[in-house]
Amino acid sequence: MITWNNLDTLASYQELSKAEKVNLAEAMNGENGAERVKNYTVPMAEGLAYNFAAKQVDDNILEILKKLAEEAQLTEKFEALYNGEVINTGEKRLVLHQLTRGQLGNPVVADGVDKRTFYVEQQDRIAEFAGKVHSGEIANGAGEKFTTVVQIGIGGSDLGPRAMYLALENWAKKHGAFKMEAKFISNVDPDDAAGVLNTIDVAHSLFILVSKSGTTLETLTNESFVKDALKNAGLDPSKHMIAVTSETSPLAKSEDYLAAFFMDDYIGGRYSSTSAVGGAVLSLAFGPEVFAQFLEGAAAEDKLSTEKDVLKNAAMLDALIGVYERNVLGYPSTAVLPYSQALNRFPAHLQQLDMESNGKSVNRFGEPVDYVTGPLIFGEPGTNGQHSFYQLLHQGTDIVPLQFVGFKNNQMDTDVVIQGSTSQQKLCANVAAQIMAFACGKADENRNKNFEGGRPSSIIIGDQVNPKTLGALLAHFENKVMFQGFLWNVNSFDQEGVQLGKVLAKRVLAHETDGALKVFSDLLNI
Amino acid sequence: MITWNNLDTLASYQELSKAEKVNLAEAMNGENGAERVKNYTVPMAEGLAYNFAAKQVDDNILEILKKLAEEAQLTEKFEALYNGEVINTGEKRLVLHQLTRGQLGNPVVADGVDKRTFYVEQQDRIAEFAGKVHSGEIANGAGEKFTTVVQIGIGGSDLGPRAMYLALENWAKKHGAFKMEAKFISNVDPDDAAGVLNTIDVAHSLFILVSKSGTTLETLTNESFVKDALKNAGLDPSKHMIAVTSETSPLAKSEDYLAAFFMDDYIGGRYSSTSAVGGAVLSLAFGPEVFAQFLEGAAAEDKLSTEKDVLKNAAMLDALIGVYERNVLGYPSTAVLPYSQALNRFPAHLQQLDMESNGKSVNRFGEPVDYVTGPLIFGEPGTNGQHSFYQLLHQGTDIVPLQFVGFKNNQMDTDVVIQGSTSQQKLCANVAAQIMAFACGKADENRNKNFEGGRPSSIIIGDQVNPKTLGALLAHFENKVMFQGFLWNVNSFDQEGVQLGKVLAKRVLAHETDGALKVFSDLLNI
Repeated sequence: MITWNNLDTLASYQELSKAEKVNLAEAMNGENGAERVKNYTVPMAEGLAYNFAAKQVDDNILEILKKLAEEAQLTEKFEALYNGEVINTGEKRLVLHQLTRGQLGNPVVADGVDKRTFYVEQQDRIAEFAGKVHSGEIANGAGEKFTTVVQIGIGGSDLGPRAMYLALENWAKKHGAFKMEAKFISNVDPDDAAGVLNTIDVAHSLFILVSKSGTTLETLTNESFVKDALKNAGLDPSKHMIAVTSETSPLAKSEDYLAAFFMDDYIGGRYSSTSAVGGAVLSLAFGPEVFAQFLEGAAAEDKLSTEKDVLKNAAMLDALIGVYERNVLGYPSTAVLPYSQALNRFPAHLQQLDMESNGKSVNRFGEPVDYVTGPLIFGEPGTNGQHSFYQLLHQGTDIVPLQFVGFKNNQMDTDVVIQGSTSQQKLCANVAAQIMAFACGKADENRNKNFEGGRPSSIIIGDQVNPKTLGALLAHFENKVMFQGFLWNVNSFDQEGVQLGKVLAKRVLAHETDGALKVFSDLLNI
Repeated sequence: MITWNNLDTLASYQELSKAEKVNLAEAMNGENGAERVKNYTVPMAEGLAYNFAAKQVDDNILEILKKLAEEAQLTEKFEALYNGEVINTGEKRLVLHQLTRGQLGNPVVADGVDKRTFYVEQQDRIAEFAGKVHSGEIANGAGEKFTTVVQIGIGGSDLGPRAMYLALENWAKKHGAFKMEAKFISNVDPDDAAGVLNTIDVAHSLFILVSKSGTTLETLTNESFVKDALKNAGLDPSKHMIAVTSETSPLAKSEDYLAAFFMDDYIGGRYSSTSAVGGAVLSLAFGPEVFAQFLEGAAAEDKLSTEKDVLKNAAMLDALIGVYERNVLGYPSTAVLPYSQALNRFPAHLQQLDMESNGKSVNRFGEPVDYVTGPLIFGEPGTNGQHSFYQLLHQGTDIVPLQFVGFKNNQMDTDVVIQGSTSQQKLCANVAAQIMAFACGKADENRNKNFEGGRPSSIIIGDQVNPKTLGALLAHFENKVMFQGFLWNVNSFDQEGVQLGKVLAKRVLAHETDGALKVFSDLLNI
């Protein structure tokens, strides 16, 4: 029997609040520190590992976190989710994104169909379509192959797929899997679409319109912008466009598209990278086999997320430590710092995933909670960030918990030896050094050169960014966010906070405003 | 006589702490709200205006902020800075980035030369060089024109110039000022350089090596990577490379470069967009005239920043309000949200500018301060952010002050009418709507759809992103950060917090580690 309780009603949370804090600088020092690095690690899928040695925890805190996981019924709640319960209470929906990559529990039937079968069908349809595009069977009006694919979508239809594309672009080039270049149009600012159209050959471009409802204003506007460009080039837009949408949307059966592939209401935009939303663009760019490997990595990590033992479940442990940092230690933000240029936009995707899911002030029953929930998430790849905002992370007045990601190998396999080491070695040396610099600091009589230390971080270490490890990494963070939502007792799967702005913007465009909004509208020449 | 005092020793700061707080939702309502929008605005250079109607201030708070500006001697300190005093106390250096774009005070002589003359000379040398590249007088080994320029630099040698390039790329294309495409290599991850080299034609590419000291490891490593690529293509690297560095660096007189242009120790990396660091790449990409306009906009805004009256000095007022939010209202972060795709990476630049400048725990004399300093800065362009992290901004448990930027016109002048409005109108309607949604919220019986409001924002409004407005915008933020550093009594111009990581990384590469660092190094295969 599952009960949904607020975090602050749990006995283990009270115990956690009172537990003795860890002196991180001390804990990470000397032989004790070395032992922590060896022992405080959780294996993940595809050879990844989550190392939490430099987090502000010890065996005592870990014991209490285990109790918290049990008392909050994290495993049972995840089980209920993948078995098809209505977990998205606000919108009264199932939450099925994990089902796009595997079957963790019982068959889930909704809208009269087996949903796993439905998602696999869409993948198969996309694979077939992508194959025909790659072979030239599906071609432009002149019978020439499409060379470029352009995703038109915003939010979850943009950030996740874009981050995944960028993560695999160079890997695919290196491994002979690069089929088509992908571009992305998202912003309603007309300069976004115009800028992208400036850099492509529209005659050889295939556009993917992505909108679950088929009513997203930004996306429809950009579609229209692109259609104008196609028509101006003497082309038939319906021969250059496909749609990814829900079966009930106006786009589903329109003759404006070469084909339509489906997602549904049980997959939130920010969780849709493994659905047709990511599937179409990634299968076209890299081939369906690469997309299948990506799903495989995600499925393997999902499976580990069902583990009851928090020391075997990296997503759950990551979630628990994050809640400890947020609610007990009082740190309001978290930085995501991948030491990999391929993961350039991965932090922007996690920013949406996390902040849109858990940036809530009411619990799943709509009652205000008396504790803080989702933290602010931001990040840039290392070593770039070191030359930017790390100054504040090291010596600022606030403590920001850090989430590093590092890989032993790069993707392109070209490197250069300078001062006795490769660039890849320098990259890895930097992330190792940063963890220790943040944890232990360094005393200096010149206070301007003094480092307090005590700044907690974790690191996920892997071999290389490739389709499988990327899938596992994505699933890790999706599941972490889900577990944190369970702990805070919020609904991580709706986003009512985006509605008011939409309503007011419509009012501005209809010139139905007064007061301050009217004056702002005038100042902006609307 | 200037005295440098800690913020919490100032009488006006004590008064500010005790002043009655403003109920923003109430203040922005009805006719009162309309009056605030009309009156709470400060004109900036190049037709920009800083509107702070939706900030948590009223006439009483503004009066105290004026006193604070006077008591903290903000104008006098800026005057000392531009007249050449040693403001960077940590490194014992002058701070002269404003001098790259104009002469605000007395001639500044250092190292035996008039520094304004020196900076102008470098601009002239760059302009002449760029002209020769554009005309083909300086060409590749085969006598063909260079078509692409690639900046190799990290941190301030990357983020600012990259953000400025992206901001003006489409404007330049529209206005016939687009001369050469620019690319950027920054990360020590070898996949960064390899990825960029994959997308360019090296035979027609000119590389700019940017490192003030000439010793930045990432940059030298990437230079070597690029030289290998040039040699492998049968090209002579010295015919494809220029340097931007200090006159005393090992790169200054090397025969490895076609030319070298100079900056100096009085310009911090994060303040170097208007120096040769930004000047070379922007003059090559868009022509020296465009770079000159960019400087003109920055100079005009600098001049306004010398105003004693805070209601005529947007940078100073923005700084004061930010300190009020950070130290009195207790908000730990600030989001920068430009409603312009052109300003895509502007937030990443401001993140460095702000967090590296003011993320300090000691004052300019090296004594620990008892108050919080620089906030966490992050942001993405609107409307994209609305479909991402705005959920937390609207309904999360923490309040995040917002800094909007909006423009009446787009750059490309192509648009589309959908549902009775253009994309540009939709873009502007959205930013206006967001300001009001954040400020006033909207009560709803369903608490999940309830918006508390009371979330403060400001907006800078302009006509269009172009070289002059971009220069003014950049100077605004540089000067805001400077004034905040004065208020917190920190040295905003050094970055000792980046040193420890460098030292430890070297130790890892030399295999001179033990304890936890040794184990991490092993895990990462170094």
